[in-house]
Amino acid sequence: MSKVQGIAAAAGIAVAKAFRMEEVHLTVEKRTVEQPEAELAKLDQALGKSRIEVQLLKERTLQQMGEKKAEIFESHLLILQDPELIGPVRDKISSERVNADFALKEVADMFISMFENNKSAYLRERAADMRDVTKRVLAHIQGVKITDLSAIQEEVVLVAIDLTPSETAQLDRNYVKGFATNIGGRTSHSAIMARSLEIPAVVGTKNILDEVKDGDLLILDGLEGVVLINPNAETVAAYREKQQRYEEQKVEWAKLKDKPTVSADGHHVELAANIGTPNDVTGVLDNGGEAVGLYRTEFLYMGRDKLPSEKDQFNAYRTVLEKMEGKPVVVRTLDIGGDKELSYLKLPKEMNPFLGYRAVRLCLDQQDIFRTQLRALLRASVYGNLRIMFPMIATLDEFRQSKAILLEEKEKLKQEDIPVSDEIQLGIMVEIPSTAVLADQFAKEVDFFSIGTNDLIQYTMAADRMNERVSYLYQPYNPAIIRLVKIVIDAAHKEGRWVGMCGEMAGDSTAIPILLGLGLDEFSMSATSILPARTQISKLSQADMQKLAEQALQKSTAEEVVQLVEQFAGTQQ
Amino acid sequence: MSKVQGIAAAAGIAVAKAFRMEEVHLTVEKRTVEQPEAELAKLDQALGKSRIEVQLLKERTLQQMGEKKAEIFESHLLILQDPELIGPVRDKISSERVNADFALKEVADMFISMFENNKSAYLRERAADMRDVTKRVLAHIQGVKITDLSAIQEEVVLVAIDLTPSETAQLDRNYVKGFATNIGGRTSHSAIMARSLEIPAVVGTKNILDEVKDGDLLILDGLEGVVLINPNAETVAAYREKQQRYEEQKVEWAKLKDKPTVSADGHHVELAANIGTPNDVTGVLDNGGEAVGLYRTEFLYMGRDKLPSEKDQFNAYRTVLEKMEGKPVVVRTLDIGGDKELSYLKLPKEMNPFLGYRAVRLCLDQQDIFRTQLRALLRASVYGNLRIMFPMIATLDEFRQSKAILLEEKEKLKQEDIPVSDEIQLGIMVEIPSTAVLADQFAKEVDFFSIGTNDLIQYTMAADRMNERVSYLYQPYNPAIIRLVKIVIDAAHKEGRWVGMCGEMAGDSTAIPILLGLGLDEFSMSATSILPARTQISKLSQADMQKLAEQALQKSTAEEVVQLVEQFAGTQQ
Repeated sequence: MSKVQGIAAAAGIAVAKAFRMEEVHLTVEKRTVEQPEAELAKLDQALGKSRIEVQLLKERTLQQMGEKKAEIFESHLLILQDPELIGPVRDKISSERVNADFALKEVADMFISMFENNKSAYLRERAADMRDVTKRVLAHIQGVKITDLSAIQEEVVLVAIDLTPSETAQLDRNYVKGFATNIGGRTSHSAIMARSLEIPAVVGTKNILDEVKDGDLLILDGLEGVVLINPNAETVAAYREKQQRYEEQKVEWAKLKDKPTVSADGHHVELAANIGTPNDVTGVLDNGGEAVGLYRTEFLYMGRDKLPSEKDQFNAYRTVLEKMEGKPVVVRTLDIGGDKELSYLKLPKEMNPFLGYRAVRLCLDQQDIFRTQLRALLRASVYGNLRIMFPMIATLDEFRQSKAILLEEKEKLKQEDIPVSDEIQLGIMVEIPSTAVLADQFAKEVDFFSIGTNDLIQYTMAADRMNERVSYLYQPYNPAIIRLVKIVIDAAHKEGRWVGMCGEMAGDSTAIPILLGLGLDEFSMSATSILPARTQISKLSQADMQKLAEQALQKSTAEEVVQLVEQFAGTQQ
Repeated sequence: MSKVQGIAAAAGIAVAKAFRMEEVHLTVEKRTVEQPEAELAKLDQALGKSRIEVQLLKERTLQQMGEKKAEIFESHLLILQDPELIGPVRDKISSERVNADFALKEVADMFISMFENNKSAYLRERAADMRDVTKRVLAHIQGVKITDLSAIQEEVVLVAIDLTPSETAQLDRNYVKGFATNIGGRTSHSAIMARSLEIPAVVGTKNILDEVKDGDLLILDGLEGVVLINPNAETVAAYREKQQRYEEQKVEWAKLKDKPTVSADGHHVELAANIGTPNDVTGVLDNGGEAVGLYRTEFLYMGRDKLPSEKDQFNAYRTVLEKMEGKPVVVRTLDIGGDKELSYLKLPKEMNPFLGYRAVRLCLDQQDIFRTQLRALLRASVYGNLRIMFPMIATLDEFRQSKAILLEEKEKLKQEDIPVSDEIQLGIMVEIPSTAVLADQFAKEVDFFSIGTNDLIQYTMAADRMNERVSYLYQPYNPAIIRLVKIVIDAAHKEGRWVGMCGEMAGDSTAIPILLGLGLDEFSMSATSILPARTQISKLSQADMQKLAEQALQKSTAEEVVQLVEQFAGTQQ
């Protein structure tokens, strides 16, 4: 028995034989052709076949996974019809008299490398799409059959270098019980789709394809991110039991979908979801989300060549508010800069972008951008329960300025007889240490806080969480972080304000007992974490968690805090 | 009367006629020569004359300003004899048959641009030296007379684009009562030399040379960084009075040179200095420093092509300890990485170097570097009162690991029968928010804290202080910073530890009343700030400052804190 460690990408456990998906290497060679017309015809046929396949994949995905996941294939279809891609390929075939596959690969590779070297994460993802589509068309031109994943008719665990979105969409979960890949992370396309399809997955193992032969028995643990190769009978039995427990747990979770979130001793909290687009709202409601705790508006600004108009934004905000039917929606104003860039904004190159010109700093400086967003939000406010929060607030001055601008725009709209809600709560992200330390002063002026732990941890520990060499210092359980969270919650409650948290920590089962004990009011997480969290909280006594939190505050290292929580969890079972 | 604002580079006030130092433009044209031998002879003569001049400047500087300042001319002399410069110039003259000045300029410009484009601040400074020396030699080759500053025989305020080190060294302070330049900052060569020469200076005015005509009456205020052009009689009188007060103040400061630092109500604190090299110790003692509060060891590692040996380091540490004659010397272990690079270390390129792999993070990873430094320190410890502190400590684990390595090396030395002091205090820099927040836990294990405000402010406000777009967020007086300082001091005192501060804030006259009130034990600053600080503290009541600090802690913005201190200062006068 051997063991491969990877990243837990989609929860669940699978026990089945391995099915290796070999990388198909399409060799493309340059040939001079006598009749370019024949090559042009080959290209058109291949494009046509590809279009039909992708259309089918799109429909299937729409049915199985909903609108948002199907969008990937919408963009594939666009690529298959894109004159900026196909035009140059046809020209190349005609003028250089070369074979169709060579011409396509040359042109596509140029686009791919252009996208890949782009700083925008959005465009880098486009590179993956382009590669996926090109592979499909090349295979058709060459008449090579690429692995037909939809043909798998026995229970398997799929093992591959990586899965493209279209490959993932072909998986039939009746047969493909799980998959493991060499590359990818928790937020790669294949991981996101695995969670939607509810297929257990482990990604980023680096070498699983080298370790596994076809037909090896695999245990894939998508909870822990582990794959066991040819385990003994005892291990298989243990995992079958773990699998059983997990299935029971899922049933238990589902029961709580429309229930409030209440601790064992009757303390209510709110479980909300983080979203990026209006399409995500369905997932929030399906998973029993009581609110949107963080609507990241950056996506509205990405993948475009100019700023989104007030109308575009208004439509998006209104859709989210309406779909949430009166449940609270906390919208974070634009948090661009740092690692998130917009090509059309021409942001200055900075030595330390995480400590630089971003979010509210940029919005207060380039007020036209800020005012357009605020107007769109104000206009949408009458369609639901809107709350607005400003990101990266470091000083009270910044909050006061932001609020003043909002009130100015509100006044203008009223002058124009455009209806605006008077019930909009106004809050801030607490993600900069100065703001946490000075929370008592802020609490006198804001309606609520939302603690953004991802950045708060990064700044408090002075460690870039994207930098592998110091990622060990990204410590959510460091007692210093827990103390700052306590300072914020206590300060808010003293002034009668509520406190949410919208970093990864809010959905983390080790952190939840402590956060409940500290008195956190709202936990905002990825939608799929809501039901597990609700179940966990229903079994915890808030009074006991207060004592647990008190102990955590007196620990000296993150390890000690984790031990404390684990010890407590052990006594619970 | 008009007014030009610049940067206050050297304290004091001057009132005198302007003397414009015109930029000498040496035009160098390429000519083909018949007799390269004649050009080679010209070059040698010019180099010889330059060497004599620089040697004279060096001796004069040694007398007037001490060993360290004279080092600049030592490096000029090295350049004038450097075969890597002169060899290629001679080759160029002989093989290309060109004139000497052209050949020199070509080769020198290549070096200058190489140095200038280097990331190392050290090499960028070498560019200035190279330019300075080249200009001198070119002038001699062409027979052009460059402004002889030592010939000024009446009281003037010198106005120039910039002053090279050799120009500054020629200034006779009996005649040159002050100088103002277009470019430069508080840490440029000319500013540093002005402070040593005690010539009032304003630098970085951008346009003073355009605004001033020869013979204009100038008031140069090196305290405020202002130059007034052709002021009226009333203004002149007011400044004469200010000048008088400043002179009296200097006399008063000097009286406190060998006195302890005591507040008006008898509370003792320690005033220490920040140093970078053993040569800086003279300045510390001349200015009445009671300790070295921060010995930055990075300079030992810079401007070399490999790591300094244990012996090199031992010699430097021993020299400082001996020169300080038993007064405490706090040595900070290597703080490299971030913006400070070493060419021979090949540090990884990072997206956010200030949040990256640096200081103790690097030392714990590359332990050979760390152990060599610790051995050198331990061996030097018997020559004085050594204290060691680790930079960028974010977690208790890091301190424990660092301490364990130190103890291992100490044990090894004892095994080798090398004497090591058993009285070495072991502390940490508090410059990361997590460490400030968790100071009570750290205080149980360290001997002392030294608060590094430059970084602490940067991380607490999440603002890169080198980034102009967000530099307004670098707020030493933000109440959040003052609260963190209080947390650290209270935690330390509870465990009987002392707390120092070695950021710029420690020498800042607005911050000092608050820091005294918070109970800071040691203030470490640039040597020239010590006597003014001692004078300021002697007039403050620590009990009153406690009350002032309490008020500052309850303010909501940096502006309010500054107002509070200013108000208090107003009532004092």
